[in-house]
Amino acid sequence: MAGNSFGTLFKLSTFGESHGVAIGGVLDGCPSGIEVDFDAIQNELNRRKPGQSAIVTQRKEPDTVEFYSGIFEGKTTGTPIGFAIHNTNQKSHDYTHIKDSYRPSHADYVYDQKYGFRDYRGGGRSSARETASRVVAGALAKQFLAEMKINAYVSQVGNMKMETPYQDLDFSQIEANPVRCPDPKMAAEMEEYIKEIRKEGDTVGGVISCVIQNVPIGLGEPAFDKLHAELGKAMLSINAVKGFEYGSGFAGVTMKGSEHNDQFNQDGTTKTNNSGGIQGGISNGMDIYFNVAFKPVATIIQPYQTIDKEGNFVQTKGKGRHDPCVVPRAVPIVEAMAALVMADFSLLNRTIKANS
Amino acid sequence: MAGNSFGTLFKLSTFGESHGVAIGGVLDGCPSGIEVDFDAIQNELNRRKPGQSAIVTQRKEPDTVEFYSGIFEGKTTGTPIGFAIHNTNQKSHDYTHIKDSYRPSHADYVYDQKYGFRDYRGGGRSSARETASRVVAGALAKQFLAEMKINAYVSQVGNMKMETPYQDLDFSQIEANPVRCPDPKMAAEMEEYIKEIRKEGDTVGGVISCVIQNVPIGLGEPAFDKLHAELGKAMLSINAVKGFEYGSGFAGVTMKGSEHNDQFNQDGTTKTNNSGGIQGGISNGMDIYFNVAFKPVATIIQPYQTIDKEGNFVQTKGKGRHDPCVVPRAVPIVEAMAALVMADFSLLNRTIKANS
Amino acid sequence: MAGNSFGTLFKLSTFGESHGVAIGGVLDGCPSGIEVDFDAIQNELNRRKPGQSAIVTQRKEPDTVEFYSGIFEGKTTGTPIGFAIHNTNQKSHDYTHIKDSYRPSHADYVYDQKYGFRDYRGGGRSSARETASRVVAGALAKQFLAEMKINAYVSQVGNMKMETPYQDLDFSQIEANPVRCPDPKMAAEMEEYIKEIRKEGDTVGGVISCVIQNVPIGLGEPAFDKLHAELGKAMLSINAVKGFEYGSGFAGVTMKGSEHNDQFNQDGTTKTNNSGGIQGGISNGMDIYFNVAFKPVATIIQPYQTIDKEGNFVQTKGKGRHDPCVVPRAVPIVEAMAALVMADFSLLNRTIKANS
Amino acid sequence: MAGNSFGTLFKLSTFGESHGVAIGGVLDGCPSGIEVDFDAIQNELNRRKPGQSAIVTQRKEPDTVEFYSGIFEGKTTGTPIGFAIHNTNQKSHDYTHIKDSYRPSHADYVYDQKYGFRDYRGGGRSSARETASRVVAGALAKQFLAEMKINAYVSQVGNMKMETPYQDLDFSQIEANPVRCPDPKMAAEMEEYIKEIRKEGDTVGGVISCVIQNVPIGLGEPAFDKLHAELGKAMLSINAVKGFEYGSGFAGVTMKGSEHNDQFNQDGTTKTNNSGGIQGGISNGMDIYFNVAFKPVATIIQPYQTIDKEGNFVQTKGKGRHDPCVVPRAVPIVEAMAALVMADFSLLNRTIKANS
Repeated sequence: MAGNSFGTLFKLSTFGESHGVAIGGVLDGCPSGIEVDFDAIQNELNRRKPGQSAIVTQRKEPDTVEFYSGIFEGKTTGTPIGFAIHNTNQKSHDYTHIKDSYRPSHADYVYDQKYGFRDYRGGGRSSARETASRVVAGALAKQFLAEMKINAYVSQVGNMKMETPYQDLDFSQIEANPVRCPDPKMAAEMEEYIKEIRKEGDTVGGVISCVIQNVPIGLGEPAFDKLHAELGKAMLSINAVKGFEYGSGFAGVTMKGSEHNDQFNQDGTTKTNNSGGIQGGISNGMDIYFNVAFKPVATIIQPYQTIDKEGNFVQTKGKGRHDPCVVPRAVPIVEAMAALVMADFSLLNRTIKANS
Repeated sequence: MAGNSFGTLFKLSTFGESHGVAIGGVLDGCPSGIEVDFDAIQNELNRRKPGQSAIVTQRKEPDTVEFYSGIFEGKTTGTPIGFAIHNTNQKSHDYTHIKDSYRPSHADYVYDQKYGFRDYRGGGRSSARETASRVVAGALAKQFLAEMKINAYVSQVGNMKMETPYQDLDFSQIEANPVRCPDPKMAAEMEEYIKEIRKEGDTVGGVISCVIQNVPIGLGEPAFDKLHAELGKAMLSINAVKGFEYGSGFAGVTMKGSEHNDQFNQDGTTKTNNSGGIQGGISNGMDIYFNVAFKPVATIIQPYQTIDKEGNFVQTKGKGRHDPCVVPRAVPIVEAMAALVMADFSLLNRTIKANS
Repeated sequence: MAGNSFGTLFKLSTFGESHGVAIGGVLDGCPSGIEVDFDAIQNELNRRKPGQSAIVTQRKEPDTVEFYSGIFEGKTTGTPIGFAIHNTNQKSHDYTHIKDSYRPSHADYVYDQKYGFRDYRGGGRSSARETASRVVAGALAKQFLAEMKINAYVSQVGNMKMETPYQDLDFSQIEANPVRCPDPKMAAEMEEYIKEIRKEGDTVGGVISCVIQNVPIGLGEPAFDKLHAELGKAMLSINAVKGFEYGSGFAGVTMKGSEHNDQFNQDGTTKTNNSGGIQGGISNGMDIYFNVAFKPVATIIQPYQTIDKEGNFVQTKGKGRHDPCVVPRAVPIVEAMAALVMADFSLLNRTIKANS
Repeated sequence: MAGNSFGTLFKLSTFGESHGVAIGGVLDGCPSGIEVDFDAIQNELNRRKPGQSAIVTQRKEPDTVEFYSGIFEGKTTGTPIGFAIHNTNQKSHDYTHIKDSYRPSHADYVYDQKYGFRDYRGGGRSSARETASRVVAGALAKQFLAEMKINAYVSQVGNMKMETPYQDLDFSQIEANPVRCPDPKMAAEMEEYIKEIRKEGDTVGGVISCVIQNVPIGLGEPAFDKLHAELGKAMLSINAVKGFEYGSGFAGVTMKGSEHNDQFNQDGTTKTNNSGGIQGGISNGMDIYFNVAFKPVATIIQPYQTIDKEGNFVQTKGKGRHDPCVVPRAVPIVEAMAALVMADFSLLNRTIKANS
C-alpha cells in the first residue's frame, strides 16, 4: 500500500536507502522449479552498477546480491525469495550540503514535507539505488519467462536520436558499447557527447526503447490493468522517467484510422504493427515495443542557489561522482521492469479459463 | 486481480459490456459525509455521452445513472456505492459483420484467443462504453477533492497542435465548443477538420492535456506507486491511449540538467515547473500537468478486408454511427481518472505519519 | 480496502443496504466458459431467503437476482459479473424506534461513531441482508468447482448438540427439514425448540458444521494465507459468528501428539483426520471439516432499555418479524463463503509451478 | 498473493526457511516518526526464542534481528523497514530422516505435492521459525499503537483449564513463570505437566487467551474485513492453531438473545461484554478478548511408522530438541499478530470520513 510492492502474483517488495545498511527485497509468488542462473543475475546487476565505464558515475559499489531464502539446491522452491545487497560505500560521504538544504528537482523537499523528516544521506529512499533490487527480481523474471526476449537499448541522448526501426537493429550490438545504443556510429557520437556534458558538470536526458518478442497471445487484463498500462506504470516508476509511449505512440496521433489500423494476415498476425503488439490491453502475439523518456539527472556539478529548511537562500554545489546521463545504466532497469510485468501477467493468464 | 478494479483506498470496480443489460460499478472506500451533487455527476456523464454534438457519434444513449447504495439523505455513508447505467440502445443492432470476423485494431481477436469466446456485440467489455462507470466514480472523487481543480482539454487533433502554455489558457472556454479546446480559433479549425474526416468515413487521433491545481504537498508514494506512475497507468487504461508524458515529458530529454532543474523560491515553490508538480513521485504543491495521446479510432466507415474465425479473408465495412475523433468525448474521462488517482493518494497520505 | 471485497483471483465486491434500492455485487476473475445454471443460483438464494419456513423470519422478499454482465449465451465470459437484487420490501417499515436510539448488541452505535451518521433503516449495511450477494457469488463458485462437494448443516441449536460424526450422516437429509439438520430426530427436536424460543420473543444461537469433499491436494498458501485461515476469516465475516474451529479444533487441545498425529497410508491419505484435511495451511486431499459458532440474534421481541444519541435511557421493544435462530438460513451462506475460498485457492494454485 | 504478506496499510511481507541463510521481512507502511525501542523488540524475540526455559525446545538460537532500512537516527522514516535474522544453528543437523520420508501431521507431504519438491531442512518454510519475523513487526506495531494494551497468556494446557475471567487476573504475573499463565498455582501445575509430557517424548496442546484494552471505537470494516475476522485469520495463520473464538465464543451458542445482549450504559459502554468489544465487526471501545486453540505439536520423540516418497512404509523416530507444548512460546506471537491487525485498522480508520 505504501508503494513499495510491484505486481500481484509475481510480486516484488523492495526496501532500502542509498546509504543505509542494505537494500533488497522479497520476491513472492515466483513459481517453483526454476533453475536459477546466479551468474546471469549478477550480470544484470553489473550492467546497472556504477563505475562500469567512463560515461557513468565513478562510484565503486560491488552490488553483490545475497539470497536468503526461496532457493534450494539451485532451484526456486515457490516460497518467497529474500535477498539483500549490502551498501559498502556508504561511510565516506559528507552530506553537509544536503542535510539542511534542498537540492533542486530532487525529492529532498517533498520527503521532509511528507514524512516530517528524512534520511538525507545520498537521497535515501528516493535514490535510484533502489532499482538494483528491481534488477535482481527482474533477472529472475527473465529466467521464468525464458522464451520471451526482452531487449532495451538507448535510442536517444539529448538531441541525438536514432531513427532506425528496431527491426533493422542488431540487438547483439547493444552491449558492445558503453552507451548501449545498437547503432555503433550513433553510439560513438553519443559517447562523445556525454563526455562533453560531464566535463561541463552538466547532465542530459535520453530515451530508452524496449522490444519484447515471442509474446504469447492473451497477456493483459481489461479494463484497468491493460498490458500497456502496467508497462507504463512500471516504466514511470523508474527514477527520472517523464514519459512513456508504445506502438505508434505520440506520433500515432497524427495518423488517420485508415492508415493506423493493422490489417490481419490469415494466421492472425498483422501486416503492420502500429498497435505495438497490444490490442485492447491484451497482447496479440506481435512484438511489443515502447519508448521511455528520461529527464536529465538533477545532480549537476555546478554552483547553484537553493533554500534551506528555514527558507533561507543558500549557495551550494553538487559534488562528487555523478551520472552525466542516466540512460546507459537504466537499460537493465527497463528490461527488469518489463520482465516483472510480463511474468505477472503470464501467471495471471493461467487463471482465465474455467478449464485449462 | 482480473483488472477491473482501480485504486486501493478509494477503489472503483466496474462491470458491464457495451450491449449487455447494464454497466456500472462499486465504489468502495469513498469517505462518509460527502454531500452528493447528483446534477454534477449527470453533467459529467453528459459530457461523455454519445450524440452531444455534430462531431461525435450520433448514437442516442441517455446514460442515466442509478445509485443503489452508499448514499443516504443526500450524503455518502462510507459504505460501498453501487451504481448502474442501463443500456437502452442495445437491441436494434445487427452484429453479423463482427460476430464471426475480427475487426482490425480492435480487441475482437485477442478476446477470442484469451477467453475462448466473446460477447461480440458492440465490442463487449472492450468497448469504451465501460468508461461511463469511471466518469460516475470520478465525479464523486471530484466532490471529495473539492479544493483541487482538475481541468482537461483537447490540445491536438491530428497535426493541429495548440502550442499555448496552459497558464495562458482560459479554462472556462473548454466547454464553449464541441471540441473542448480552450482556444476558440483553434477549436473552430479542429471542428472543421473533424467534420471532414467524418465525411471520409475515417478517423483521426488527438492529444488531451490535463492540469491539476491546488494540490497539497506530499501525495504519491515511493517507489513503485509514484504519483505520475499511477496517473500514467490511469490514463493508459483509457481506450485508445498510446502515450503519456508529464512535466517536460519527451521534450525534456533534450534539455540539460542545468536548464531543466526547477530552482526554489523561499516558500518552497519553484521558479519553473519542468517537474510537472511532482518530485520523486510526490507532489510538491506546484501545478501537475500532463499529456495523453489518443490514436485514431479503429472503427472506420470504409470497406476493408479482414479474417474470420477460420482464418479466411472476408470483405467487410464498418457501419453505423462512429466517433471520427475520440478526444472531445474523452476529456471528462481523463478528468475522472485523474480525480480517482488524486482521491486515492489523498486518503493514503493521511496514514503516513505516526501522529497526525 | 474498505472491506467490501473478498478473494484475490476469484474476487467478490458487494454493495447494498438492507433498505436501499438494491444490494448486489461484482464478481471479478470468474473464469470464462462456465455454463451457468441459473436455477441453481436462485435455489441457493431461496435457501437463504426470509419466509421459507415457520422457524425463520416471516418477511416476504423474493430475492430475485438480475445479472447485468459477464454472462453471454449462457456462459461466463471471463469479464466481471455484475448483479443486483432489488429490495422490494423496504417501503413499509417504521424505523422510529431505531433512528435515534441504539439497539443493544447491534452495530447501530459503532456505525454512528465510525462514520458520523448511518443509514438506520433495517440495520443498513450491517444487516445480514448483504449475505444474499455472497450466496449469488458462492453459487457461481460452486459451479466452477464442480467436482468439490461442499455440504453445510446445523449441528447444534442452543444446548441441543448432534454428536454424530459427519461420516455417519446422510447429507441428502439436510434439506429435508426446515432446521437443515441431517439427523431427522434431532431436527424435529430443534424445530420444536426454536418455535418455543420464538413464542418467547427470544432468540438462540447455534453451530453450523461444514464438510468439503473431493478436494485436490495443494490448495492454500503459506504463511499468512493458510487455507484454514482464509476459511476462518470467511466464516467470521458472516453476521453473528463468534467462533471457528477446524479438524480437531478446540477439543484437539486436550490430546497428546501421539494421539493427534494422522498416520499415513501408503497412498498419502491418512488413517485418521484430526488435521481436518489441511497440513501447514495446505489441503492434503482428505475431507476438510469445520464448525462455525453463531450467537443468538440480537433482535428480540421483548421490551428493553437502551440509550439514544444523547445518552438518555429510553424504553423500547423489538418489533416485527425476526429470526429466532439464525443457523437454518445461514447454512447456504456458510457454503457460499467456503466455495469462494476454494475457488480462489484453486485458481491461485495454477500459478505455483514454473512449468504447468 | 502467494500468501506471505499480511495487512494492507501496515503490511508485513516475510521470507525465510528454518535452515536457510536468514529469515526476515519487509514492513511497509509503518508510519514515520516512531521512536524505535530496539530493546523492546529484542525482548519480544527473546520471549519467543528457543532455549528460554526448561519446558521449551533446548535449541540455541540467538535470534538477533538486524535492521537494514527504514529507521534513521532512531526513528522510523516512513519508508519500508527491511530486517533479517540470520540462522546460526542451521549447519549441524542431520535431516536424513525427513529428506525422503514424510512426517505425520507435518507439511512435508503437501509441500512436495504442491511445489514439486521442498527444502526439507527443519521443515523449511513451514517451520514456526517464520513467526520470529512476525514478532519483530508486531513489536513495531505495538510501539505505534502505544496506548493500546495487548496481553496474551496461556489459559489452558491439555485438560488443565484456567477458568478465571481475565478481569480478575494480574497480567504482570504472565512473565513471572515459564508457562506464561498469570495464575501462579495453575502455572506451576501446568509446568509440571509439560515436563512429564516431555519425558514421554510426547506433546500436548493448549489455549492462549488475549485481551486488548484501550481500543478506540470504530476499528474494523464491514462486510468482509470485520475486526474479529481479521483477528481470526491472523491467529489461524499461526502454526498449530486449530480454532479461534472471541467474546462469548462457542459458549455463546447456548445463550438466549435476552441474556447475551449487552445493555448500554449512558456513556455508550456496556454493562456486560459478551460481544467481546466488537459489534458488527467494528470495535465499540470495550475490551476485546479472544481464545486461540493450539494442537499438540506434531514432532514427537517416539518411534513411528510413516511413508517415503515412493509410498513405502518406513520406521522412523523424531529426534533432537522439540517443544513439548507450543503455547508458552506462542504467547508473543499471538500478541504480535494482534498488534499487526490493530495497527492496520488504526491507519485505515483515518480514511473513513471526508473531513478528518
